[in-house]
Amino acid sequence: MALVVQKYGGSSVADDEKIRNVARRVAASAPGRELVVVVSAMGKTTDHLVGLAHQVSPAPDPREMDMLLATGEQVTIALLAMALQALGLRARSFTGFQAAIRTDRAHTRARITQITTERVRQSLDAGEIAVVAGFQGLSDEDEITTLGRGGSDLTAVALAAALKADVCEIYTDVDGVYTADPAVVPDAKKLARVSYDEMLEMASLGAKVLQSRSVEFAKKYGVTVHVRSTFKPDPGTLVTKEEQGMEEVVVTGVTHDRSQAKISILRVPDRPGIAAQVFGAIATKNVVVDMIVQNISRDGYTDMSFTLPRGDHRRAVTALEEVARSIGALGVVHDERVAKVSIVGVGMRSHGGVASKMFATLSKEGINIQMISTSEIAISCVIEDKYAELAVRALHDAFEVGKGANR
Amino acid sequence: MALVVQKYGGSSVADDEKIRNVARRVAASAPGRELVVVVSAMGKTTDHLVGLAHQVSPAPDPREMDMLLATGEQVTIALLAMALQALGLRARSFTGFQAAIRTDRAHTRARITQITTERVRQSLDAGEIAVVAGFQGLSDEDEITTLGRGGSDLTAVALAAALKADVCEIYTDVDGVYTADPAVVPDAKKLARVSYDEMLEMASLGAKVLQSRSVEFAKKYGVTVHVRSTFKPDPGTLVTKEEQGMEEVVVTGVTHDRSQAKISILRVPDRPGIAAQVFGAIATKNVVVDMIVQNISRDGYTDMSFTLPRGDHRRAVTALEEVARSIGALGVVHDERVAKVSIVGVGMRSHGGVASKMFATLSKEGINIQMISTSEIAISCVIEDKYAELAVRALHDAFEVGKGANR
Repeated sequence: MALVVQKYGGSSVADDEKIRNVARRVAASAPGRELVVVVSAMGKTTDHLVGLAHQVSPAPDPREMDMLLATGEQVTIALLAMALQALGLRARSFTGFQAAIRTDRAHTRARITQITTERVRQSLDAGEIAVVAGFQGLSDEDEITTLGRGGSDLTAVALAAALKADVCEIYTDVDGVYTADPAVVPDAKKLARVSYDEMLEMASLGAKVLQSRSVEFAKKYGVTVHVRSTFKPDPGTLVTKEEQGMEEVVVTGVTHDRSQAKISILRVPDRPGIAAQVFGAIATKNVVVDMIVQNISRDGYTDMSFTLPRGDHRRAVTALEEVARSIGALGVVHDERVAKVSIVGVGMRSHGGVASKMFATLSKEGINIQMISTSEIAISCVIEDKYAELAVRALHDAFEVGKGANR
Repeated sequence: MALVVQKYGGSSVADDEKIRNVARRVAASAPGRELVVVVSAMGKTTDHLVGLAHQVSPAPDPREMDMLLATGEQVTIALLAMALQALGLRARSFTGFQAAIRTDRAHTRARITQITTERVRQSLDAGEIAVVAGFQGLSDEDEITTLGRGGSDLTAVALAAALKADVCEIYTDVDGVYTADPAVVPDAKKLARVSYDEMLEMASLGAKVLQSRSVEFAKKYGVTVHVRSTFKPDPGTLVTKEEQGMEEVVVTGVTHDRSQAKISILRVPDRPGIAAQVFGAIATKNVVVDMIVQNISRDGYTDMSFTLPRGDHRRAVTALEEVARSIGALGVVHDERVAKVSIVGVGMRSHGGVASKMFATLSKEGINIQMISTSEIAISCVIEDKYAELAVRALHDAFEVGKGANR
């Protein structure tokens, strides 16, 4: 019998009516399958709880925050189990603790270290649907921990890996992964399949369907992930290991990310240890940098540029201005009106001329490229923000993305 | 250093402002003491969760109900720990599981079987205030259980017993136990002390301050309970073992209960096994009977009367009409417009004439007594509901209750 892990996010279980709807959806897929259902907190519950925490404390302790937030998923599992039982199905809910999801001690952003599947396995063997709280686990000190943003996806994928499930279905309010944002590119196509690596590039490049951590985990353990709609019955997008034929398509998707800012340090003395000093200063501010570009030096000086989340950019500039003075750089400039557009595809590995075609396409539209970075299967350009949609449409057209979407 | 267990109920922690208030109250009592703080769910949280459960299922599974309801207290402990930390105190929250509160498997009305104090003790030794979720525990199968009505009081008393605390303070919206309901008797006095037995009689007779289960537990383990106000600093009422001098006062309190109904079975054949048959029929309907009165028989027949919670009375009547037919009784009559008034006091043991004085007092006011029952330290009369306040005031006067309130 096939074993399927399903995950429903917060908007799919936002109220009692939606929970009953999910229960019907689960019930419809139950015959002939063993089912584990992972759920998030209802709708805005987490935001509400975070709000309460900040009402009672200016800086809530991470351990107590986890204690607080873990209740959100616990409410949903109990209600979903009841709703399934009301449909005549056997169901049993499990907290992270009961599902034996062990994590490290890093409160609010814990990593899963081990899952002992015995108790969930027993539930399945007894003919029950196991309903498991996403987002939470237990440290080796028996402290309740949470996994951070996208944590419920991670719970689902990790359970699928531990239980050797046939597939992990992620139900969401979009119906799959598209070749580009359909709001920007009207003829964007839903992809039938993407490889883990492509999905990783797309996840980190701004396609909000799946968090990178879950995709990495799925790749590591070979879990097939099926991204599909809570509200429509159609199949969505399979995220799988790379398969024959995938490389025939050069560009699988075009993504854009408008949540970043760009910072440059000008005329940095080019000597060993300088980069470490610069990025050390930012790291101490807990800012995660995305793209980094350093030009070759001229006359012993170079310019360094990088992008980072827009919300972190003031903190970073303050830290960098100090560093700039101490190392004798000319100064720091920053720009929030930037966007990053990227093309992604495993086919790039075996096709030449992809980068030059991308640059030519942007140039033809009169778009200046401010920064470039490349990986094995993706090329990203930072451009002026106002050109973001134009760039995505032009690239989607030029590379004929979507023509092979049903590979 | 004195060890004190404090318990704050749902109305004391109903919103973030009240939680900050409780935190200040706890902080004020912290110097020089080890503190364990037990809290209930915020205000109407439990009602809200029960409502949600009934939205998704006509008959929610008790196990899932416990899973759901236990989140209420978990939210409060996290928020209170944060609020205490915000005041500069060290605090740590504990779920029932983490505080090692073990129960039997009777979901929604579990009994505490064992408390391993090790982890809470460690927290106290580390100079922390331990904030423990009331109302919840863990069965030996690691299932989350709840203790039923008044469960948080029970958690507090049980922790006080297990930790050998000096006192268990129950904070509530009244400021102590009164000689009668002050809404009915304007000159009712707050009692400085009551014995466990008196409090038990008062708890089961309608004074809503403390649930009987907690008082029984306190009596069994000799825990001194201090009932006091969340909102006022004055001392409240100590519930303790019987002490010298207590017997000098004949009547400690006058209570009334308007939540019951009366049922009589008329002309019951008086032969062995009949009572078992009658009350067996009610017990199978899960109805808990309070007073039972059976008159002596005449001509081989007797009447049987009893009181029971008003909400259960239709179910009981239906069951009894069947029994009445099968045993050849004349019929069943019932009355919802009754009240029970009682006088309570350990002094009754050593004073004669108390009952006759009670009956004379009621008679002088023209109040007919429908049923009488007595225990060693209490006498209760069922009367017509409309005379309830009058009866309480007359008895409070006649026995000069409250004159020795500060014994």
